[in-house]
Amino acid sequence: MTRGVCELITIGNELLIGKIVNTNAHWLAKRITSLGGKVKRIIVVGDYVDEIALSIQEALTRKNDFIITVGGLGPTFDDKTLEGIAKALKTECEIHDQALKMVDRRHRQYIEDGRIVEGGLTKYRLKVAKLPKGSEPINNSIGTSPGMMAEYDGTKIIALPGVPAEMKGIFEESIAPLCKKAAGNVMFFETALFVERIMESEIAPLVEKVMHDNPYVYIKSHPKGTEKVSQIELHFSTATEKKRGRDLISKALVQISELIRDKGGKIKPVRF
Amino acid sequence: MTRGVCELITIGNELLIGKIVNTNAHWLAKRITSLGGKVKRIIVVGDYVDEIALSIQEALTRKNDFIITVGGLGPTFDDKTLEGIAKALKTECEIHDQALKMVDRRHRQYIEDGRIVEGGLTKYRLKVAKLPKGSEPINNSIGTSPGMMAEYDGTKIIALPGVPAEMKGIFEESIAPLCKKAAGNVMFFETALFVERIMESEIAPLVEKVMHDNPYVYIKSHPKGTEKVSQIELHFSTATEKKRGRDLISKALVQISELIRDKGGKIKPVRF
Repeated sequence: MTRGVCELITIGNELLIGKIVNTNAHWLAKRITSLGGKVKRIIVVGDYVDEIALSIQEALTRKNDFIITVGGLGPTFDDKTLEGIAKALKTECEIHDQALKMVDRRHRQYIEDGRIVEGGLTKYRLKVAKLPKGSEPINNSIGTSPGMMAEYDGTKIIALPGVPAEMKGIFEESIAPLCKKAAGNVMFFETALFVERIMESEIAPLVEKVMHDNPYVYIKSHPKGTEKVSQIELHFSTATEKKRGRDLISKALVQISELIRDKGGKIKPVRF
Repeated sequence: MTRGVCELITIGNELLIGKIVNTNAHWLAKRITSLGGKVKRIIVVGDYVDEIALSIQEALTRKNDFIITVGGLGPTFDDKTLEGIAKALKTECEIHDQALKMVDRRHRQYIEDGRIVEGGLTKYRLKVAKLPKGSEPINNSIGTSPGMMAEYDGTKIIALPGVPAEMKGIFEESIAPLCKKAAGNVMFFETALFVERIMESEIAPLVEKVMHDNPYVYIKSHPKGTEKVSQIELHFSTATEKKRGRDLISKALVQISELIRDKGGKIKPVRF
């Protein structure tokens, strides 16, 4: 069964010092999964060329369909993603004509809007048009820095900006269709139950039995209770051909509900 | 300057399908940074022994002081962290006497509280007392599964549960003192400014100048505005000896404020 397997590399010291929560990785993971793709690993590294290059090289050895980086495409000295990607691909960055046109167009717009007081494509503004040799810019309808796409040994390397609106905009416009195509006719289905009056260690053998009987359904238990009251979320998911997914999950849901009730557990369904 | 350098490996398919946001990684990154430590990389892998083992092995090659895993210590089949760590260390898991006593004590408590209807240390309950050979359990004052600590080639490998209250409880009780000790007299200081009426590409050369003049201060710009209005957050941080940090940051703050005002920018301080 073909799917688009993906690694996400989110770049930024602000993630490593706990200044912000990695909501970009969360959004992308959810969105790619909903398109039928599979996120296999998420990595956070700091704003260092060598760290970025190493993480890209490691991800390339794992032969995924996509490597998507987020962040580090801006005009400042610590926006080093493209330099890191170039280093991983053993090449260099250079001004890309099409990227330059995108940046120039945006820049003229800023002058018209009165947002820029000093004109000219300074080296900081030109920086965002410098891409690794052999790569292509991706249109950014919302902000200044274009995205980037490169291919290496069967893997598409995609660089998105870290500003959430720009990241989402480029993803929806240019990347989602690629993920959807790679996923083929695979869709992701999920649902969940909350279980009370029974502990996770008592549910464990039931989950094992139901997963054995329903090999395409993945069931994961998440303890959600307090020290005094057990509450377990049972999350059901499957990635399979359209139409089949709902039936597969329904069957597993019915079976585990009966087993849990037999053990004295109480069930509350969760809506998705 | 000594610091405790750390990699975080958060484990769970729920993170890779975007079911939940990785707030555990965020909390740990912030807390370790506040203790003077440095988080160098954050990794998310799924509930697969091979994936976990590979991520541990890769992290070990980077010679950090700490590798902290989060999640996958529970009683269910897909709690595979300790098996993964054992595989990375080329050993196996076995019942650890002290861990078994911890689990047994907790289990008796559950029977007293009437939370368990069926008694006995089933294989699912015993599972959480099975640790990689040569490792030690860490007391969990809140939940059932003990944490784990192992040493390999100068790196402390620490496994924490994924339930946030348990993760935080074990970290504060047993791991924070180790991080603090590794950090020595290094402390982390941060502050921020919001800048308006000036674009990031115009601020870039100013940041470069101020960082050149203040080599121990790291300044990062984060665009926070909309398509129509520029707003840039400038975040200042330094990790250095106590007392010195605040002075270093203040000096950089004053210098950049003057430069920004000269360019027509408007500054709003942010409180931390």
